[in-house]
Amino acid sequence: MSQKTSTLAESRTEMTELLLPNDTNNLGRALGGAVLHWMDICGAIAAMRFSNRQCVTASMDHVDFISPIDLGEVAVMEAYVFNVGQTSVDVKVDVHAENPKTDERRKTTSSFLTFVALDDDGETTPVPRLECPTPEEEALRQEAVEARASQLEDVIQRMDEA
Amino acid sequence: MSQKTSTLAESRTEMTELLLPNDTNNLGRALGGAVLHWMDICGAIAAMRFSNRQCVTASMDHVDFISPIDLGEVAVMEAYVFNVGQTSVDVKVDVHAENPKTDERRKTTSSFLTFVALDDDGETTPVPRLECPTPEEEALRQEAVEARASQLEDVIQRMDEA
Amino acid sequence: MSQKTSTLAESRTEMTELLLPNDTNNLGRALGGAVLHWMDICGAIAAMRFSNRQCVTASMDHVDFISPIDLGEVAVMEAYVFNVGQTSVDVKVDVHAENPKTDERRKTTSSFLTFVALDDDGETTPVPRLECPTPEEEALRQEAVEARASQLEDVIQRMDEA
Amino acid sequence: MSQKTSTLAESRTEMTELLLPNDTNNLGRALGGAVLHWMDICGAIAAMRFSNRQCVTASMDHVDFISPIDLGEVAVMEAYVFNVGQTSVDVKVDVHAENPKTDERRKTTSSFLTFVALDDDGETTPVPRLECPTPEEEALRQEAVEARASQLEDVIQRMDEA
Amino acid sequence: MSQKTSTLAESRTEMTELLLPNDTNNLGRALGGAVLHWMDICGAIAAMRFSNRQCVTASMDHVDFISPIDLGEVAVMEAYVFNVGQTSVDVKVDVHAENPKTDERRKTTSSFLTFVALDDDGETTPVPRLECPTPEEEALRQEAVEARASQLEDVIQRMDEA
Amino acid sequence: MSQKTSTLAESRTEMTELLLPNDTNNLGRALGGAVLHWMDICGAIAAMRFSNRQCVTASMDHVDFISPIDLGEVAVMEAYVFNVGQTSVDVKVDVHAENPKTDERRKTTSSFLTFVALDDDGETTPVPRLECPTPEEEALRQEAVEARASQLEDVIQRMDEA
Repeated sequence: MSQKTSTLAESRTEMTELLLPNDTNNLGRALGGAVLHWMDICGAIAAMRFSNRQCVTASMDHVDFISPIDLGEVAVMEAYVFNVGQTSVDVKVDVHAENPKTDERRKTTSSFLTFVALDDDGETTPVPRLECPTPEEEALRQEAVEARASQLEDVIQRMDEA
Repeated sequence: MSQKTSTLAESRTEMTELLLPNDTNNLGRALGGAVLHWMDICGAIAAMRFSNRQCVTASMDHVDFISPIDLGEVAVMEAYVFNVGQTSVDVKVDVHAENPKTDERRKTTSSFLTFVALDDDGETTPVPRLECPTPEEEALRQEAVEARASQLEDVIQRMDEA
Repeated sequence: MSQKTSTLAESRTEMTELLLPNDTNNLGRALGGAVLHWMDICGAIAAMRFSNRQCVTASMDHVDFISPIDLGEVAVMEAYVFNVGQTSVDVKVDVHAENPKTDERRKTTSSFLTFVALDDDGETTPVPRLECPTPEEEALRQEAVEARASQLEDVIQRMDEA
Repeated sequence: MSQKTSTLAESRTEMTELLLPNDTNNLGRALGGAVLHWMDICGAIAAMRFSNRQCVTASMDHVDFISPIDLGEVAVMEAYVFNVGQTSVDVKVDVHAENPKTDERRKTTSSFLTFVALDDDGETTPVPRLECPTPEEEALRQEAVEARASQLEDVIQRMDEA
Repeated sequence: MSQKTSTLAESRTEMTELLLPNDTNNLGRALGGAVLHWMDICGAIAAMRFSNRQCVTASMDHVDFISPIDLGEVAVMEAYVFNVGQTSVDVKVDVHAENPKTDERRKTTSSFLTFVALDDDGETTPVPRLECPTPEEEALRQEAVEARASQLEDVIQRMDEA
Repeated sequence: MSQKTSTLAESRTEMTELLLPNDTNNLGRALGGAVLHWMDICGAIAAMRFSNRQCVTASMDHVDFISPIDLGEVAVMEAYVFNVGQTSVDVKVDVHAENPKTDERRKTTSSFLTFVALDDDGETTPVPRLECPTPEEEALRQEAVEARASQLEDVIQRMDEA
């Protein structure tokens, strides 16, 4: 593993998108795929800011769409790196929907993506070690680790019940 | 549950896309998010063909990107309904990359999406029961059920090792 | 002409698209140009799968739009190579509209495109000879040849009447 | 037929597009389908300017792509109405490619589209009679009528030779 | 003027975009128009968050593009409301380019947009009064007022010299 | 300054766009940013036609949106070079909205952009001197110079009143 370090804070990324017609289905609600596309790009920017490398998506965890986003509403994606491997980083991405007319803000979904860092020849390359120098960063890291484990337990339980 | 039935075959959907520049990153490889967007649309069409209802994405299972797709290659998404609830359907979506110059065809990823059926007022509504009248359909259904369980076990094992 | 051969079956391509708002006019119906764009891409993939070469559009035959496609409906393009020249292939492309709520499927249009194969320097290059080893392939080939001739006769007759 | 009249000049439409990456194939040349899409929109604007009605594409004549358009070049579409029926108008659309670095301008393609006029209920509705009050308009009308007939003869001859 | 108030902080909006091929010219640099489009959307979200109304663009001040953004870099737009009229709000939008490989961050441009608030009938409607309860908000407000005046002086001076 | 010359007429560019859903906000009116994007591309084509060089946007003057453009209407951008520096050109861009059902044509906005010419290495490079050999060109040049000065005076006056 690289001796270089980066902080969780360096990776933090916020992406705000106005929901336009082509992002919606026939009911005027966000297509799931449009949201997944934004989550992937937001996560990739967080991974690149952290690693200073081109990053490609290796995997995305289970995604539950908790509430819809309607045409004209705003989607806010927030991402940060919470765990690293030799050549990969794990990113938590949260999505909220906002109705600008009412200030209502509701959680849409949350998931965890893993990105692999590549050098200029497209080969995998080591990533910095993750540092969380402030209590806020340490809390965010901890929250992501626990949320990921908890989400997996939910998935397992639902599969067992089905 | 509805007394109406639909067959697995009625849901089968094939979607073929030429990878264009805006679907790629700086290395000329498909953005993960572009592939996720196509998987969601392909799955939604399968769900709507099956249920004859507007369908919205409720969840997407874990997605592993096994191999990249390069600029100028072709992405092929294939989807079918393999399980139903009261008002929801489960869809398996497979993605392959094809290099048209070499006939090479390689698996990119595979996952499982759940869609909810809505009536014209946007309320959840019952879906038909799934029928698999041919051995091929029954085999596809079985394959999807097993692949989903197996994929979840892989995810659990990797989490335990991490 | 190349000694290499490819089969009609190798070229077959199916492309399924959900009609999104930007593909429609002010009445919520598919823009003719959106359909033409899909027909060209579907035909190009069929031509590349057949020839294993980069293919560019040389011409498109007359196109009649028989029935509209509405917002939220599904467009299905199907293409195959039915004739070859020294460095060119002829592709038949059919388009159907599907209303996923009613299972209604109606023909939208059908036409014939010619693509030229290019090597890596952008120069025209020989294409494989077409083989139709199965009766189904031979029937598809024959159908395309006849449909193309018949469509041209229709165009001539209408021009004479005008 | 409507007693209302419009002139050829009222329909004239010029559309200029910078060729962007997503309009090109792997060789950096315009996708045929991107050009067809622009031709349809340019023709539709000409038809609407003439008829003061929403217009939908009924048919497009044979299209030959004479020369490629490269990434970074400019595509210029020019359209005008040259013939009318009861509820339809015929539009000639010419496409030229321009290399802004050399002032080179070359013909890319030319074709003829028929549009049907619709009222606010989506029903076909009469269009104005075509007037060509100036010699320039009359010459353009004549040129389009002859070019359409001549293009059809070319198509017939090539089909006979094939 | 409305008795309702909103704070500067409520309007703050951050929008992060990965520069994709279609946002660039032939040199692989961001099209000015792509950046202007993002600035307008980011400003509109800030205006809507502040006013809880649909907002439309009334004007945009002079824009200087100080440094280019290259393909694969990240564009970050930041916006906040710094002044209000009866039915309009003034928004400052800053754009920075980031090279994720080097952590380099450079100013691209900065400008000032005015948005008008509309009610559900599309009529202009009063906006809340602006409050800056924290020293940070008051400093941001002051900075925007001064930067706008200073930018206008620069424009005047350059025009005088020309 | 280059000894080469180009005429104002050589730069004239007309761009016509049908307003599609993704160019509009929740009220079905053109997003300001969509119009700004078209103005920049139209101006860049005028600058490239004049200079025979790749051109990048250096600045855009103040933009007032005088009247909205509605979904299904047509936006017409017209641009020409009216002034040159050593390596830069100034372009006037006018935008009109057209309602094709009523022939109504109304001014939407007008502004002035400066583009810098680049050679193949991306370095600034001299541009031709501007010639206006016809009275019409000289009038257009004069009109642009005066309109630019007048617009700046308006901006100054409004700022003073605010």
